[in-house]
Amino acid sequence: MRIGVLTAGGDCPGLNAVIRSVVHRAVAGHGDEVIGFEDGFKGLLDGRHRKLDLDAVAGILSRGGTILGSSRLERARLREACETSKDHARDYGIDVLIPIGGEGTLTAARMLSDAGLPIVGVPKTIDNDISSTDRTFGFDTAVGVATEAMDRLKTTAESHQRVMVVEVMGRHAGWIALESGMAGGAHGICLPERPFEIDALVKMVEERFSRGKKFAVICVAEGAHPAEGTMEYKKGEIDQYGHERFTGIGNRLAAELERRLGKEARPVILGHVQRGGTPTAYDRVLATRFGWHAVEAAHRGDFGMMTALRGTDITMVPLAEAVTELKTVPVDRMDEAESVF
Amino acid sequence: MRIGVLTAGGDCPGLNAVIRSVVHRAVAGHGDEVIGFEDGFKGLLDGRHRKLDLDAVAGILSRGGTILGSSRLERARLREACETSKDHARDYGIDVLIPIGGEGTLTAARMLSDAGLPIVGVPKTIDNDISSTDRTFGFDTAVGVATEAMDRLKTTAESHQRVMVVEVMGRHAGWIALESGMAGGAHGICLPERPFEIDALVKMVEERFSRGKKFAVICVAEGAHPAEGTMEYKKGEIDQYGHERFTGIGNRLAAELERRLGKEARPVILGHVQRGGTPTAYDRVLATRFGWHAVEAAHRGDFGMMTALRGTDITMVPLAEAVTELKTVPVDRMDEAESVF
Amino acid sequence: MRIGVLTAGGDCPGLNAVIRSVVHRAVAGHGDEVIGFEDGFKGLLDGRHRKLDLDAVAGILSRGGTILGSSRLERARLREACETSKDHARDYGIDVLIPIGGEGTLTAARMLSDAGLPIVGVPKTIDNDISSTDRTFGFDTAVGVATEAMDRLKTTAESHQRVMVVEVMGRHAGWIALESGMAGGAHGICLPERPFEIDALVKMVEERFSRGKKFAVICVAEGAHPAEGTMEYKKGEIDQYGHERFTGIGNRLAAELERRLGKEARPVILGHVQRGGTPTAYDRVLATRFGWHAVEAAHRGDFGMMTALRGTDITMVPLAEAVTELKTVPVDRMDEAESVF
Amino acid sequence: MRIGVLTAGGDCPGLNAVIRSVVHRAVAGHGDEVIGFEDGFKGLLDGRHRKLDLDAVAGILSRGGTILGSSRLERARLREACETSKDHARDYGIDVLIPIGGEGTLTAARMLSDAGLPIVGVPKTIDNDISSTDRTFGFDTAVGVATEAMDRLKTTAESHQRVMVVEVMGRHAGWIALESGMAGGAHGICLPERPFEIDALVKMVEERFSRGKKFAVICVAEGAHPAEGTMEYKKGEIDQYGHERFTGIGNRLAAELERRLGKEARPVILGHVQRGGTPTAYDRVLATRFGWHAVEAAHRGDFGMMTALRGTDITMVPLAEAVTELKTVPVDRMDEAESVF
Repeated sequence: MRIGVLTAGGDCPGLNAVIRSVVHRAVAGHGDEVIGFEDGFKGLLDGRHRKLDLDAVAGILSRGGTILGSSRLERARLREACETSKDHARDYGIDVLIPIGGEGTLTAARMLSDAGLPIVGVPKTIDNDISSTDRTFGFDTAVGVATEAMDRLKTTAESHQRVMVVEVMGRHAGWIALESGMAGGAHGICLPERPFEIDALVKMVEERFSRGKKFAVICVAEGAHPAEGTMEYKKGEIDQYGHERFTGIGNRLAAELERRLGKEARPVILGHVQRGGTPTAYDRVLATRFGWHAVEAAHRGDFGMMTALRGTDITMVPLAEAVTELKTVPVDRMDEAESVF
Repeated sequence: MRIGVLTAGGDCPGLNAVIRSVVHRAVAGHGDEVIGFEDGFKGLLDGRHRKLDLDAVAGILSRGGTILGSSRLERARLREACETSKDHARDYGIDVLIPIGGEGTLTAARMLSDAGLPIVGVPKTIDNDISSTDRTFGFDTAVGVATEAMDRLKTTAESHQRVMVVEVMGRHAGWIALESGMAGGAHGICLPERPFEIDALVKMVEERFSRGKKFAVICVAEGAHPAEGTMEYKKGEIDQYGHERFTGIGNRLAAELERRLGKEARPVILGHVQRGGTPTAYDRVLATRFGWHAVEAAHRGDFGMMTALRGTDITMVPLAEAVTELKTVPVDRMDEAESVF
Repeated sequence: MRIGVLTAGGDCPGLNAVIRSVVHRAVAGHGDEVIGFEDGFKGLLDGRHRKLDLDAVAGILSRGGTILGSSRLERARLREACETSKDHARDYGIDVLIPIGGEGTLTAARMLSDAGLPIVGVPKTIDNDISSTDRTFGFDTAVGVATEAMDRLKTTAESHQRVMVVEVMGRHAGWIALESGMAGGAHGICLPERPFEIDALVKMVEERFSRGKKFAVICVAEGAHPAEGTMEYKKGEIDQYGHERFTGIGNRLAAELERRLGKEARPVILGHVQRGGTPTAYDRVLATRFGWHAVEAAHRGDFGMMTALRGTDITMVPLAEAVTELKTVPVDRMDEAESVF
Repeated sequence: MRIGVLTAGGDCPGLNAVIRSVVHRAVAGHGDEVIGFEDGFKGLLDGRHRKLDLDAVAGILSRGGTILGSSRLERARLREACETSKDHARDYGIDVLIPIGGEGTLTAARMLSDAGLPIVGVPKTIDNDISSTDRTFGFDTAVGVATEAMDRLKTTAESHQRVMVVEVMGRHAGWIALESGMAGGAHGICLPERPFEIDALVKMVEERFSRGKKFAVICVAEGAHPAEGTMEYKKGEIDQYGHERFTGIGNRLAAELERRLGKEARPVILGHVQRGGTPTAYDRVLATRFGWHAVEAAHRGDFGMMTALRGTDITMVPLAEAVTELKTVPVDRMDEAESVF
């Protein structure tokens, strides 16, 4: 069997672990041939590809990024790109294509699949917002980086009697904010799923200080926004990929808190640090299992599907089902955290 | 409501996170009172306890160990201890007892529950071998520590053309070896669940060297043992708690490999480093959720149960069900790892 | 002997290690009494202090922040504060005061010393810019945090063909940028000591991309600024403590690079994460040695001095000498880095 | 100029950083050619070498191990090897050889230099025991790994009322034990430089427990040994490289403490984990500076010398001076630590 593999969309720790696992299982396990396309669908469109054998993936398990490179596909060019991709995949003799990517990539994958190309998808998002899978790799690493930052900030906040506002990733789903906020012991968590009440946040911080506590840490998702009419705020622009640009809720919230509290409030914007570097053990295992099962699915002819974690099992779910709706944080998870405003 | 809490058995990162979460939910959420017993059931038997308010649990989320101390209960004294515990719990006006512990503790908890004491258990084991829950806290931290050690050992093994044998925890279940072996890219994994074939291990290493690879890493669970008749080996003694002492499979395997391969093979025994220190974000979140749900179960009168992770949900399962059998590594998980011998 | 200790100025990993070491050496070694003043000189002025015995410092060696709290002293109130401090120190029967702090604190310390109060200073700055000492504690931790961030950013930059601009601390001295830039393999380093040439930076990045490299990382100190006339730039305001506010060189440099290169350039502002959390082993050892030698100096009557690292030795240098000039990055250190623009 | 480079002896984080720095400075800075010999002097003897250009060293700064491989030279073959090496170096047109290694390597380097080969050495030892340099790279990483292990062990020791004995590297010099013991807050430190008093250790632990402390951590160098007649002990064998094999002081000390104290005492042998993996920022900077200055020395014709750190400067010292005596821990450093037995 000749397997094509590509990585597309934003960076995500664990991509290399999937690539390595696909190659190990396919080449060593089944005697397949694996072709890697460079820079996502662009490489498939342009014909930039290389053979991936065992040596090509040696030592990459613990490396962040993707040895294949990545790119985003503009939404407008999606349909055209699908046609070309399909033709090229056939030109290169690809029996099955394993695209590893997020919502956009899986949508493209579904279109390719509908157009007749054998596809087995592997979901990827550090935001953990793909439905049909309990978790996605990269998320655990991002949560770990954000938690470590909050651990560090707490001691400095405590010594200097100050409020820290930590902005973490999460445009439409607040999973990183929720879990790193819980793990980092944030006193307030603001999620895209629930417009936050600035008055309640201010009151919580004031109560902490009145109880003799000397600091507070607020964890805010980049996509969080205040309840209407409670704080000056304007929506972000829409970028060329159809994403709303959310810039600066961390900065704005810190400024607003400082103004209302009369205490120092400092923003820390974690940004791309959350996306890069060595994946956690959890993410390496999940990514490795996804890769292994993607190859098995390909050999079973289980096309138009993607790998998914359900409980402790890896199962296959239809691509169609996977991309219909975003998995957002449900209310009962907010209740557990006890600090979602 | 008056809630008693205690931690028993071996150390496990996340214990403090459970204690903190129980106190937060009970005291701040429900206006309960929380009493902590010191050194596990011993403190309950001896009447050593202290009140746990919000200040008592400040800053402990990220700390390893347990602020309450722990101890193991000798199996022989279990029944007697249960009777006394029950009486004492009533003397202290405990409406519900939340014991946080492993198999032994949960067995004791079940006996206490059968004897009429309201109990909500929280499972704890770094070995991840309690059935009825997808995962237990502490496991992710242990896997992380073992993976980081393998990351470090790989570079030194590679530079010096040597075989490294890393012994990790896991007496009866090989979850730590399986997942850290996968995450650390171990070339061989030996689990308690499957007697390993020393010949096959030797052959794998020889093939690696013949392909120009300069090193190999073997990850072995402390409870792993060779297939009968393949290597000199004797079973460990039974200690006073009913556990078999497994000492030294790492050392013995390294010696055997060195003898057969004619190459340097060095053992590294990770030991207690896996059990201590700051829990990972994953373990802090899981432990916090367990604590929260234990208090909710207590308020619902959901006694004789323990918290469990199923998929992404925390559910309650009967203690009776939880301790009947050990959750060991199934064959399909070994297949995925591709390097279990 | 009755020793007063206080921590002042910005946060710095290792402060607790100094406090612990002072207490250990003084109490256990000499049978002294140690009094800790809260929130820096403020506590000395307000009479807020507490006894520090061995139990009070148990477990703090690895903790960031300062158990005594800190504050900054406004420059305008310095002389007045010194008078009051001197009187209070006598009121509390302090035989020697050990202030742990940066340039401002050591200047105050020198004034107090000149006014007749027995003082042994301990220098503290994550910026490493105090002359007379080879290194200060906290610096190694800050460099470590910044280096780890660059390690993470490199993989994501590489996969997405992007320029990353990492802003690190350093208002007047670029030591953190220099050493984290070298350790993180930054392709460009911008220091306060040398106005950077934006044209040369742009050219370097273009040459990298033309050689097939897919990314570049620029490490910029918060106090760096462009060579005159080369890029739009205005100086920051002076804050109430006499410090120039440098905000945003990272953001501005990223925007300028993106405009000139026609490639994505993303800023990452590390901020307070560099100041907090567990100190590295290096910083713990240096802080511990400083504390030990401060107590020894106090017992020798070596007043008006501060501890300093010279080579591998801890020596005492006059406070007068210590605060006369800032230790900036010399040209030969820039040459070694090979990437200072 | 044509520069040969090789790495020899035990593994040490930072070796790749030196290689990279030599190549960067030589190739990009001076237009030189760099040849790397594989597996230390063996590669020079066997003629196994490869060209090292900028691409060959891309991405290795943060990687442990050595891309060139390493080997130990048997002491008996030293003189013969030198002759052959000298001839081969001339055959390959090497203008200067930069060997990176420890005491054995530098001794060989000195012999080669005396025999007329232009040599610039770079000292390497995680043990930090080479005189003439304040520090060597790799040491900081080893201390960091050992300190992190002690941080982890402390929480588990505290919760379970147990003594932990941590054996760290250091055959003849106790620097790693001293500094990680200080940084990890060990209550007892045993060094090769001072035979330890088991009675005093036992007394210290008993006093701790009598003061209500629930644990103790002892940090012991692998080369430490008890004062004569105080504890059963036999010296190790001499291996083929002339090193005494010290195996098991950690295990033996734990057993002895358990016997005398009647409390659980557990050994943890850190072993090779200390030698591998990502170097700390400190070690990367020091290694990078050594590489840079080695090339500069080569261009100045400063042969028969090695790089050394003196205070904050890199200087050149004669190889002859460097290897005459081992740098051991002096008494005043033991006094500072306050817990050396």
